[in-house]
Amino acid sequence: MADKIFRVNMSDLSAKVEAVPEAWMGLGGRGLTSTIVAAEVKPTCHALGKHNKLVFAPGLLSGTAAANSGRLSCGAKSPLTGTIKEANAGGTSAQMLAKLGVKALIIEGLPADESKWYGLHVDENGVTIQEESEVIGMGNFAVVQTLNKRLGDKVGVITIGPAGEMKMTAANISVKDPDNHLRSNGRGGLGAVMGSKKIKFISVAPTDRKVAIAEPEAFKTAGRAFAKALVDNPINKALAQYGTNVLVNIINEAGGLPTKNFTSGQFAGHEAISGETMYDTIVARDGKPRHNCHQGCVIQCSQIYNDLKGQYKTSGFEYESIWALGADCCVDNLDHIAEADNIMDDLGIDSIEIGVAFGVAMEAGVLKFGDGAEVCRILKEEIGKGTPLGRIIGNGAGSVGLAFGVTRVPVVKNQAIPAYDPRAIKGIGITYATSTQGADHTMGYTIATNILGVGGKVDPLSKEGQVELSRNLQIATAAIDSTGMCLFIAFAALDDPACLPALIDMINARFGIKLTADDVTSLGMSILKTERAFNLAAGFTNEDDRLPEFFQDEAIAPHNVVWDISDEALDSFWNF
Amino acid sequence: MADKIFRVNMSDLSAKVEAVPEAWMGLGGRGLTSTIVAAEVKPTCHALGKHNKLVFAPGLLSGTAAANSGRLSCGAKSPLTGTIKEANAGGTSAQMLAKLGVKALIIEGLPADESKWYGLHVDENGVTIQEESEVIGMGNFAVVQTLNKRLGDKVGVITIGPAGEMKMTAANISVKDPDNHLRSNGRGGLGAVMGSKKIKFISVAPTDRKVAIAEPEAFKTAGRAFAKALVDNPINKALAQYGTNVLVNIINEAGGLPTKNFTSGQFAGHEAISGETMYDTIVARDGKPRHNCHQGCVIQCSQIYNDLKGQYKTSGFEYESIWALGADCCVDNLDHIAEADNIMDDLGIDSIEIGVAFGVAMEAGVLKFGDGAEVCRILKEEIGKGTPLGRIIGNGAGSVGLAFGVTRVPVVKNQAIPAYDPRAIKGIGITYATSTQGADHTMGYTIATNILGVGGKVDPLSKEGQVELSRNLQIATAAIDSTGMCLFIAFAALDDPACLPALIDMINARFGIKLTADDVTSLGMSILKTERAFNLAAGFTNEDDRLPEFFQDEAIAPHNVVWDISDEALDSFWNF
Repeated sequence: MADKIFRVNMSDLSAKVEAVPEAWMGLGGRGLTSTIVAAEVKPTCHALGKHNKLVFAPGLLSGTAAANSGRLSCGAKSPLTGTIKEANAGGTSAQMLAKLGVKALIIEGLPADESKWYGLHVDENGVTIQEESEVIGMGNFAVVQTLNKRLGDKVGVITIGPAGEMKMTAANISVKDPDNHLRSNGRGGLGAVMGSKKIKFISVAPTDRKVAIAEPEAFKTAGRAFAKALVDNPINKALAQYGTNVLVNIINEAGGLPTKNFTSGQFAGHEAISGETMYDTIVARDGKPRHNCHQGCVIQCSQIYNDLKGQYKTSGFEYESIWALGADCCVDNLDHIAEADNIMDDLGIDSIEIGVAFGVAMEAGVLKFGDGAEVCRILKEEIGKGTPLGRIIGNGAGSVGLAFGVTRVPVVKNQAIPAYDPRAIKGIGITYATSTQGADHTMGYTIATNILGVGGKVDPLSKEGQVELSRNLQIATAAIDSTGMCLFIAFAALDDPACLPALIDMINARFGIKLTADDVTSLGMSILKTERAFNLAAGFTNEDDRLPEFFQDEAIAPHNVVWDISDEALDSFWNF
Repeated sequence: MADKIFRVNMSDLSAKVEAVPEAWMGLGGRGLTSTIVAAEVKPTCHALGKHNKLVFAPGLLSGTAAANSGRLSCGAKSPLTGTIKEANAGGTSAQMLAKLGVKALIIEGLPADESKWYGLHVDENGVTIQEESEVIGMGNFAVVQTLNKRLGDKVGVITIGPAGEMKMTAANISVKDPDNHLRSNGRGGLGAVMGSKKIKFISVAPTDRKVAIAEPEAFKTAGRAFAKALVDNPINKALAQYGTNVLVNIINEAGGLPTKNFTSGQFAGHEAISGETMYDTIVARDGKPRHNCHQGCVIQCSQIYNDLKGQYKTSGFEYESIWALGADCCVDNLDHIAEADNIMDDLGIDSIEIGVAFGVAMEAGVLKFGDGAEVCRILKEEIGKGTPLGRIIGNGAGSVGLAFGVTRVPVVKNQAIPAYDPRAIKGIGITYATSTQGADHTMGYTIATNILGVGGKVDPLSKEGQVELSRNLQIATAAIDSTGMCLFIAFAALDDPACLPALIDMINARFGIKLTADDVTSLGMSILKTERAFNLAAGFTNEDDRLPEFFQDEAIAPHNVVWDISDEALDSFWNF
């Protein structure tokens, strides 16, 4: 049976199943969610109002046996940035939705009665909408437990926590993972959009259906070559041992680890929060140093971090989260950061945005740099309860800067700049400035080439070649984000000549088509241009493709460098 | 002696006096402040950072005997809107600065040491900068009293209250009036810019100097004709009796009195807060129904409103402030509103922005509609003390909407929409949308022609003729704002053929020049285009010249009308 568009209208609480329009047939993941948002959402609408739509889509390869293909894409107009927004996450739902034949799930409208909350349930026949009270106000972990009890352990869960219910613009959307923990469509406040539509969760029915494969043998052959490329890659091996947090020492050494609200490029406490320390701690406490966020992942960069008593504290403990509360807030204590990470998972709020927001709040004097215990208290007692201070921080770094009159506010398009200082690693600054989504390292991860030596080498401190680097990676990323693949396939794709052809062969075998590498590049370009057109129609201009002025005004240690990429160079990004 | 530019650099705490560049010679007031900001401030800079500048200028006729010429213009990039900003106010300083030969006072830079505060003192030799501690943290009334004691009763005072010290983006700049009360450069957060520069006050030395008049006899003759036109005007007579608050009943009757956060066009409690009720109350309590905000005003729309015990409570008790806390917040008690008005004067915060912010906060459930006592408590205990809730509200209506996820947020370019609903009075909606300054009724007061029948009649509910009306008034206003004249000369200027020629004759006699009416129109156009160019360079587009979507989506009683002016019509505003 052909995949379908599942469409829900929350204004009249109706749902229907539609044929996939011809133009959307070849799209999946981000390519599809961005195309639908661009086609159906008025770019100038209020992101929390009735004219915005929330779109979920599995990737082109989700639901198949392809390694690392289980990312769920979510798109909408962002209440944080005002741009188009796509965020994707692991967990079990992408593969389940794909098996159910859901090409995309589009949620539109707002209920007239603001006092009521709803849960959606997706099975192969469509979506049912039911008023919900039991889990309203619950944290994400309790939502998952409650729905497991109600619908069975195998149910897929897409949920928002209290942050999303309160429409905080840093609220994320969480997805249940194979161990009943959480993965997050983290950035851009998509959880607030789901909250505005009064949807607390979407449950996804388990199914025995399988995704149809046009050429099964060819698919298997390509799949094996692809998985081998991933497993053999040396970066992926480091990720498997230390997680993404392997980067703390690497980026600190490079002088690009933003510290104390972006006033230095190195953190004296880096060893205490490093991947190596984390690994030792996990092993000593009987945690799991390797763990997969979705079935079929062969990299397994996730981990389970236990507390001193050997009890689960957090998982998916990422470099960017650890950096944000660690170096940027000067908290040199992994247990405090793990506690905070767990609370943020439960509240359903973006750990990058919130970590950076705390850094700005510390600069404003709301709490002291380094006070990890107070961070945890504020998360629980202020953000969790929606106090005025909680709302200020829960709306992100820009909100904190506004509230307290701080001028050193590291955001682009109002989204917090993550864990790589653009003064010391200039390629990533191009990505922050020009991304269609606000500052986001994943949109064009130049760290690969600037620092890790993947895909060649571009000196991080030089202005040369950075625009081209960011452009090529942003194009490739947009395409990868459409496949349902985890972005970490990029390391192998950039350096192993067997990887990308195998990926394309899998797509061709899945659909019985004949894509070439050029087609994939064209797809990436087309997605970026679609997203850019949405933003221009929303009123964005080249002047929004800029870093905050303090990056130009304040040199950062140890390299004593400022941001010195010209506006003209930034604007040349779009010359393709 | 020729007028000079007085320039202060807060980065190195230096001051100098410069000759006026040729290009600025013919400019004053808004024409001059906007020209200087456009020439010297990078449009994309952070408004609270070191690259912004704060510019004060008396008008072309300030300091002369011309009636109603005592407005002080202040300009900068606005931290509230991100646009160029001009706000002007009465009080004694404009005339004093003009007599001292100050063409403009330009304040640039920020002190390196953020812990210190300063006071500036202006006399005919220039500006002295002194570290200040005594009045830091004080409300505006105490600042005035302290400086009167320190420098004598005749000193001019330009000051910020706690809101400006805390860099709240609704903070205004207050100017001492002839009775030691306060007038405000109200809109756009200019007080936060002054606070960012760590300047608590500017004192202005009294002087015996007089403004030079090139043709004294011609000036006197024109001045008499001009004053007569003002005094004879029937609208001005109504303003003299009831103050601007005469409008409550008029606008309520027109169905354009935004009520309960812009959900209705009429307020059941309008009588209790009307100009007529206010007049009776003032008379009964031995207040002053007529009062001038600056020397030489012949309209005297101000008043002194006493409390039940006959003690001073507030003055300059304006329609827009009374509407904001009254109809928009459903507070039908003038004493609560007067108390709030007095606190806002003391805190130094824009009563329109804050009133509208309270309306949004009431919709969010922070406090109840109609709870005037709680409004006063929040003003004193939260905004005054800079608590998180105080900062949310003190940063204006947009900030409250963001914090609490409200979508009915009446702002344009993040500045609160004032007291006239654009659905029922469409001309003013054109002004809100297209003004270079964010929503601001004073920028092109179509109420004159839409409602009061001044300058002809344009049906407020029709789409016809509104763009032309707003355009003509915005051009005329930009010119009037350059003269130092109060905007209320416009009623006479529109309807009395003697008024405008007399005004031009006064300018010509003052400078010995030969301006024509066409020159004045050209000046107005040129100012608007200069301001618009700044905004475009800051990244604004036509998409920012729009009203919030709820005005299109929600019809308003009693006329059951929505905002239906097309985007194309709005964009045609700039066709001149």
